[in-house]
Amino acid sequence: MKQLHLGAFMRPVSIHTGAWRYPGAWPDANFDFPKLKRLIQTLERGKFDAFFMADHLAFLNMPVDALKRSHTVTSFDPLTLLPALAAVTERIGLIATASTTYNEPYHVARKFASLDHISGGRAGWNLVTTANPDAALNFGQDAHMAHGERYKRAREFFDVVTGLWDGWADDALVRDVESGIFFDPDRVRALDHEGPELKVRGPLNIARPVQGWPVIVQAGSSEAGRQIAAETAEAVFCAPGTLEDGQRFYADVKARAKAYGRDPDHIKILPGCFVVIGETVDEAKAKRAHLDSLVHYDSAIASLSIALGVDARAFDPDAPLPPIPETEQSKSGRERAMRLAEREGLTVRQLAQRLGGYGGLSMVGTPTTIADAMEAWIDGAGSDGFNIMFPWLPGGLDDFVDQVVPELQRRGRFRREYEGTTLREHLGLPRPPNRFFD
Amino acid sequence: MKQLHLGAFMRPVSIHTGAWRYPGAWPDANFDFPKLKRLIQTLERGKFDAFFMADHLAFLNMPVDALKRSHTVTSFDPLTLLPALAAVTERIGLIATASTTYNEPYHVARKFASLDHISGGRAGWNLVTTANPDAALNFGQDAHMAHGERYKRAREFFDVVTGLWDGWADDALVRDVESGIFFDPDRVRALDHEGPELKVRGPLNIARPVQGWPVIVQAGSSEAGRQIAAETAEAVFCAPGTLEDGQRFYADVKARAKAYGRDPDHIKILPGCFVVIGETVDEAKAKRAHLDSLVHYDSAIASLSIALGVDARAFDPDAPLPPIPETEQSKSGRERAMRLAEREGLTVRQLAQRLGGYGGLSMVGTPTTIADAMEAWIDGAGSDGFNIMFPWLPGGLDDFVDQVVPELQRRGRFRREYEGTTLREHLGLPRPPNRFFD
Repeated sequence: MKQLHLGAFMRPVSIHTGAWRYPGAWPDANFDFPKLKRLIQTLERGKFDAFFMADHLAFLNMPVDALKRSHTVTSFDPLTLLPALAAVTERIGLIATASTTYNEPYHVARKFASLDHISGGRAGWNLVTTANPDAALNFGQDAHMAHGERYKRAREFFDVVTGLWDGWADDALVRDVESGIFFDPDRVRALDHEGPELKVRGPLNIARPVQGWPVIVQAGSSEAGRQIAAETAEAVFCAPGTLEDGQRFYADVKARAKAYGRDPDHIKILPGCFVVIGETVDEAKAKRAHLDSLVHYDSAIASLSIALGVDARAFDPDAPLPPIPETEQSKSGRERAMRLAEREGLTVRQLAQRLGGYGGLSMVGTPTTIADAMEAWIDGAGSDGFNIMFPWLPGGLDDFVDQVVPELQRRGRFRREYEGTTLREHLGLPRPPNRFFD
Repeated sequence: MKQLHLGAFMRPVSIHTGAWRYPGAWPDANFDFPKLKRLIQTLERGKFDAFFMADHLAFLNMPVDALKRSHTVTSFDPLTLLPALAAVTERIGLIATASTTYNEPYHVARKFASLDHISGGRAGWNLVTTANPDAALNFGQDAHMAHGERYKRAREFFDVVTGLWDGWADDALVRDVESGIFFDPDRVRALDHEGPELKVRGPLNIARPVQGWPVIVQAGSSEAGRQIAAETAEAVFCAPGTLEDGQRFYADVKARAKAYGRDPDHIKILPGCFVVIGETVDEAKAKRAHLDSLVHYDSAIASLSIALGVDARAFDPDAPLPPIPETEQSKSGRERAMRLAEREGLTVRQLAQRLGGYGGLSMVGTPTTIADAMEAWIDGAGSDGFNIMFPWLPGGLDDFVDQVVPELQRRGRFRREYEGTTLREHLGLPRPPNRFFD
């Protein structure tokens, strides 16, 4: 019986714009370390594979009337938060997002190697190219790099970072007190990379990560995003709206991985999944309706604008969505919004309200109906598990750990105890061989 | 009676090349998180102001025969380690080194703000320009930026980072659940910086740090280093070899700060101080002699080469030091080495052996003689305290906390309990006003 994997998609703690206003929710759940500690310790009690932290490198590009309602405006840098959470947990994986467009590969390799050693092999790198064009303005540039160029740099960036990690043999650290030899220079080598985008000598000034490489995670669903995932990723965060979409994506990415010479089982497909739990399906639906009602229309229309990459305020709210041109921003959001509107026949207003809350895959029901739906996905070749999006904190997270996890465990679909100690072991991924050393 | 401040200079845990070989020392003290946790918790028990972590962005540029003996080759990125240490401590300050030459100011501002919030106001930023020219090769550049240019960029970088922190009023986060307003956009502003070196829009996507700004630390002792310290620093790590040197440096930097319109008491001068403790002075000297004997001559001559910025292997080991030309590398090391050789009439070999262990200010004696020397420094306007360098770990650190700290406390020179909760409060520094908001 196929087991599922669970990540917790934790930025900005809840994906839902109204989450911080829900009765009983912590309005500062995304920006208070003791609360984040309590949340990750609950996830670890629930035996989650990983805490997955998304990221932004600028305010979301939405009008200020919507932005002022968003709890995304302040949050922690993932590579600063996750080491702190590593120190207060023992087993759960820690996946941090880091951009290949606005970072240097030497820093990225070093920080993830540090996190992996500090956490005893629990680090994962969600490699992104950054969709928000406003990020460019915070990093000395006048315009955001074009989509294709970003992915070209990302692919080379991946080669450099993993090459820096491989620059150390696993046995390079000798520490022979008697002879005074600390490391064997024959077991460490410079990378001497000179590519079209990047030039990095190395070696890295930190030993090879505990896991060989931290787990590589990808989240793009454009053509270029899928291809880089197939070539490099070991876990994929994706956002299919329906099981059919999910099956298509799953088959496509696994086939691409196979065509690239990889074992398709070594790339885990984990869609984002927004979960609202009730004692009855109607109660769960009522909770979601209440939550959605906390989203202001200004925020809703702003979310739609972000998804589409254009200012949607000029559209007629009660008409169908007009045709939207492609832009250099993330293509996946635009496609998803257009397909959702078409599939459900939504007006601009309806689409905006749905997206202003959360417009992607949702499971709203009882622990039984949710476990049923999850089984349908993993048995139907739609996914290998999910990145769970909690509707508010801590209630939505506690409900999942206390009600859905035990139901999945009863069905033999989810671990009762961690069997390994590293994120690779949790996900059933092999340790990567070293390209330079036996 | 003047109180002193104590930082722990912790990279690469011990400054002494032979530290990892000393009997009873942990050879992996610099690269094992549980051991680092034990060390910082001991420092916190000793009421230290701060854990101070230096940094390198490449292997030290020494010949491989010396490098292979150095425990500096693997260590944690400071901004990854310190959040983890923040999570296992409550009061001690956390100072991380970050280079202005090889970083983006938006990242630096965001990471230190994150660390400050996560630690409840205990972060400090040791602003460096990076002396090792090999770093350039790890960051896509062919040559290291010249000394003057590095400092020019550093000064502007400081303005940008502090400007990003000031972009949020302290009361900007409203989180009004009723109205749905999360923050007040009139209390947050973009920086819109366009200078000769840097262009950054902002605002930062994290609220103003708990301390307003993390404590600003500087370590350069060149002319440019002293001037930027006088203008920006709140604590200065310096390396005078003697009390007379220290008094000169102290008077110079405090006078520069005053000339710049600052209160000289708001810039704390904390020299690095290598401390070896014995029950008698002779026992302490014997310990140091044993420790120095663990430094291989290859390492010694390499250290001398680094300090001078030239390859010293060609020099006659038994002759006095020949004249050394200035290079674009760190100027302070060259000056210190030349002055030490002259002052004590050392041959190249003698100088190398001293520097290969640690050639700077040392206090080798009993808790009584060490406390006497420290009092002479702070009463003699030589310093406001020290950054203590431990000879090996954990023994050298434990001895300091268990023997010297109580002696300083008995004399009324050092706190028995933390009085405040932030690093600023420990150091007696004011909270910086916000340049943009009341």
